[in-house]
Amino acid sequence: MQIGFIGLGHMGGPMAANLLKAGHALTVFDLSEAALDEAKTAGATLASSPRAVAETSEVVITMLPAAAHVKAVYLNDDGVLAGVRPGVPLIDSSTIDPATARMIGETARARGNPFADAPVSGGVVGAQAGTLTFMVGADEALFETLKPVLAGMGKNMVRCGETGTGQIAKICNNLLLAISMIGVAEAMKLGEVLGIDPNKLASIVNTSTGRCWSSDTCNPYPNILPNAPASRGYAGGFGADLMLKDLGLAVDAARQAKQPVFMGALAQQLYQSMSQQGLGSLDFSGIIKLYGAK
Amino acid sequence: MQIGFIGLGHMGGPMAANLLKAGHALTVFDLSEAALDEAKTAGATLASSPRAVAETSEVVITMLPAAAHVKAVYLNDDGVLAGVRPGVPLIDSSTIDPATARMIGETARARGNPFADAPVSGGVVGAQAGTLTFMVGADEALFETLKPVLAGMGKNMVRCGETGTGQIAKICNNLLLAISMIGVAEAMKLGEVLGIDPNKLASIVNTSTGRCWSSDTCNPYPNILPNAPASRGYAGGFGADLMLKDLGLAVDAARQAKQPVFMGALAQQLYQSMSQQGLGSLDFSGIIKLYGAK
Amino acid sequence: MQIGFIGLGHMGGPMAANLLKAGHALTVFDLSEAALDEAKTAGATLASSPRAVAETSEVVITMLPAAAHVKAVYLNDDGVLAGVRPGVPLIDSSTIDPATARMIGETARARGNPFADAPVSGGVVGAQAGTLTFMVGADEALFETLKPVLAGMGKNMVRCGETGTGQIAKICNNLLLAISMIGVAEAMKLGEVLGIDPNKLASIVNTSTGRCWSSDTCNPYPNILPNAPASRGYAGGFGADLMLKDLGLAVDAARQAKQPVFMGALAQQLYQSMSQQGLGSLDFSGIIKLYGAK
Amino acid sequence: MQIGFIGLGHMGGPMAANLLKAGHALTVFDLSEAALDEAKTAGATLASSPRAVAETSEVVITMLPAAAHVKAVYLNDDGVLAGVRPGVPLIDSSTIDPATARMIGETARARGNPFADAPVSGGVVGAQAGTLTFMVGADEALFETLKPVLAGMGKNMVRCGETGTGQIAKICNNLLLAISMIGVAEAMKLGEVLGIDPNKLASIVNTSTGRCWSSDTCNPYPNILPNAPASRGYAGGFGADLMLKDLGLAVDAARQAKQPVFMGALAQQLYQSMSQQGLGSLDFSGIIKLYGAK
Repeated sequence: MQIGFIGLGHMGGPMAANLLKAGHALTVFDLSEAALDEAKTAGATLASSPRAVAETSEVVITMLPAAAHVKAVYLNDDGVLAGVRPGVPLIDSSTIDPATARMIGETARARGNPFADAPVSGGVVGAQAGTLTFMVGADEALFETLKPVLAGMGKNMVRCGETGTGQIAKICNNLLLAISMIGVAEAMKLGEVLGIDPNKLASIVNTSTGRCWSSDTCNPYPNILPNAPASRGYAGGFGADLMLKDLGLAVDAARQAKQPVFMGALAQQLYQSMSQQGLGSLDFSGIIKLYGAK
Repeated sequence: MQIGFIGLGHMGGPMAANLLKAGHALTVFDLSEAALDEAKTAGATLASSPRAVAETSEVVITMLPAAAHVKAVYLNDDGVLAGVRPGVPLIDSSTIDPATARMIGETARARGNPFADAPVSGGVVGAQAGTLTFMVGADEALFETLKPVLAGMGKNMVRCGETGTGQIAKICNNLLLAISMIGVAEAMKLGEVLGIDPNKLASIVNTSTGRCWSSDTCNPYPNILPNAPASRGYAGGFGADLMLKDLGLAVDAARQAKQPVFMGALAQQLYQSMSQQGLGSLDFSGIIKLYGAK
Repeated sequence: MQIGFIGLGHMGGPMAANLLKAGHALTVFDLSEAALDEAKTAGATLASSPRAVAETSEVVITMLPAAAHVKAVYLNDDGVLAGVRPGVPLIDSSTIDPATARMIGETARARGNPFADAPVSGGVVGAQAGTLTFMVGADEALFETLKPVLAGMGKNMVRCGETGTGQIAKICNNLLLAISMIGVAEAMKLGEVLGIDPNKLASIVNTSTGRCWSSDTCNPYPNILPNAPASRGYAGGFGADLMLKDLGLAVDAARQAKQPVFMGALAQQLYQSMSQQGLGSLDFSGIIKLYGAK
Repeated sequence: MQIGFIGLGHMGGPMAANLLKAGHALTVFDLSEAALDEAKTAGATLASSPRAVAETSEVVITMLPAAAHVKAVYLNDDGVLAGVRPGVPLIDSSTIDPATARMIGETARARGNPFADAPVSGGVVGAQAGTLTFMVGADEALFETLKPVLAGMGKNMVRCGETGTGQIAKICNNLLLAISMIGVAEAMKLGEVLGIDPNKLASIVNTSTGRCWSSDTCNPYPNILPNAPASRGYAGGFGADLMLKDLGLAVDAARQAKQPVFMGALAQQLYQSMSQQGLGSLDFSGIIKLYGAK
């Protein structure tokens, strides 16, 4: 298939590489010369603008840092919508606010192009391994059409509902994730200072009502789980600054919807404080350092 | 075995009944005439004080509302320690602060009586069904000795470490549980107002990094899980006022240990607000009502 | 003086009326026909667009709901900057984020027009009485130039620094105001339930280290201060939804600046909750209702 | 007058010294030999127990660290109530929970001794200078009786209501104080990073709705107020650990009264975090260091 791919960063780069490996033909665009060089070496055709990418593609995929970039890439004069042929489906895998996703979707549909928001989980590791999970906002028919394309980059594709629901699913999940990670950090640190063996506490929690992904798969206390970031100085994993970005999207969306999120707002401030202390590039489980952990 | 049992309330009553069913001989004490009558009918021998219970027992179990009661029942002139024979093991299944548990344990050991703190999880339903989990603070030898006794009331017995660690495990787990439940409530309510189907959101979260007991087993959003309290008006389950008590123990223990618990303190205030609104007898997942849920 | 005035809402309407009373000639624009009719009756000249207003004015004043409106009114094709003559000073009295104020200011200056952000405090009552306070972001020379104009609408003009600092002063003050109001609500309600006479408590606080505007001038407990909104059912005053808007600006600006604001974020959620309960039009001191006050 | 004084610490020591200077005869007790030596040198008579102090006194004053000490000093076998003659009034100037104050008061009255809780504000500086403020829980008659005694140690005496209300006034005021101080810290730090001159911001806030003791008398931003602790490295003043103690009393009293205090609980955790970082002996305005201040 002839695929257009825009945004070749830490995530987009390996995703595009996997599509090439899967046998697709790729036309790509990015602002970074280095990223373009790498893609060319891997077999991609370079284009001079998002519009140029779109003109020759049977499907267009975007993977961008934030809503402002997505708006520009789709809506500018040299953007995707200015060049894409009617009927060509568009996929945005960036993590952005649901309202912008819906707006782009409506604009695209008005021009005859189906649009899906399809943010991912799995991080850079999953992007490289081709094991990402896609949370897809699209109607049934579009979802079925896109599945084979997404299969070149990931293992799981979940249809969340109509346009925008992919973003909603992602930010709601990450809101909960941020909160439960801090909950685990507080519980583990409290247990330690009160005098229970942290390994014992983790094993009890993990078979009890406190169990969660943050306790049984990514425990923030060092040396509970050998493969967790906490056991290698919080290197790798899901960076605190990225979690902070997602929390910002969740808390902002809540505000737009006039919905209080007490814990989410506190989590955001705690990650902001972690970032202010220069720890924003650590895995987000490093939040335990705010509680006096070494 | 000749067992003494003190405290025949909502939890202690059915626990004692199960010990009788298991073939043990019971001597019991409570301040409620009604509770004593019921125990007598079930085959227990009544005693006139904790001391009298202790005098004739090979093991003594207590199940009381709070630390003040535990102190009185063990340490008063007509208390357990005044009557118990040397070497007889003592088990406190109340949920209290670790410091009091340790103090009682030291006092008991000084008189020659091994002591275990063994708070439970599983609630009234687990107490009646004999399926409680015991989190036990005791040395290895004592733990092995007590296992057959506890087996008459529960299914799982976990040794958490030395005296006090049973209480630590319980309050740390429940601290995390309170926080993650509120996290799920915020994520589900936010998803709803943003426009994703709550069932779809729950199923995504439950296979993603947000998964936790509060989302996959006791989801606070109505009609996600047919058997969860949320699907029957938040009746039954683990009452918000009981969670509030446990959060009080956790936050207080943190204060004694000079350990901040930002999220735990906020969770405590949210449950306090729920209770102030007259909702304290609902299952603790009813916290979602603070977020505008009907 | 020939003044252009854009935005004739609850605040802008009476501000324009006062300028007319002060003897200035006014050309005005608003989207509301009713507002225009009222201004015409009071002696203003109507214009068909912000651009048309600007073309004939010696100074232009804008008073708009939010940053999006300010951007549109200044930057659109039929906006102020498209019509204004070089050298004519521009004053924006809307409350918006400092970054947008700075951007508008730079754009205006690039075209040869000095720009001042001059948000107000004093509310509708102050707008009607001509007793507003203006917090002005402008250089010294511009500030001196604008003073006589502002004097037609208010009593106090404070120069806060260069462009944007008027907005900064306003949102920082209101951030603190929101927090201290909630602090007073918690202290007064706690005192009441513990059993001190609320009037006695207020008088002690007001001569002690807890004293603040929220306790001595706008106490949220009913019938402490006869003229406070709390003593008339929280009618009038500074609406909770307006405080919520300002808190949103403050917390957002903090996020842009990577600065944690724990209390500010919690205050925002508490006002969001008040608003969700349908109390957003009450004075912001009505936040005490979240604490069980009748 | 023949006055008994128990508790000669940082506060009690200078208070007792001032009573001696005022011409009263003092019998004193403390656990510290050094404190007793100092009192003896200043002219006090030493006694061997609180009971012995009480036996010879026309009024007894206590100034102790916490409720546990107060209970022991009044209620133990060698305590004040065991030795005091009927009718002799008792004054406790410790800061403790209102419930304990009421309990001691009732016990004392049952034995025929009027009791007043009279916690102070003004700190060590005020104790030395004899300028303390006393918040007194006592009936009118007792208050009038005690005034001349208190006048030897302080300048202001405020009657707050019946027994316990002195403590209530103090903890409610300090709850508010802790919250508004953090509010000022957030507002000042936010203003700084957004780019307003902190001195300008403070002067605006101090004449606006954000004004409070924490902004106009003890501003936490350095070099706004030359005499504030913030301008001398946060030395002296009211130590953060003492504020943490008072917040603990307030939040605990709220819990007993089933009253949520969202901001109070967050303030407590923030001061706990400050203390955990080794900053507990700084003035409580040093909380601004949690926000990235140097």
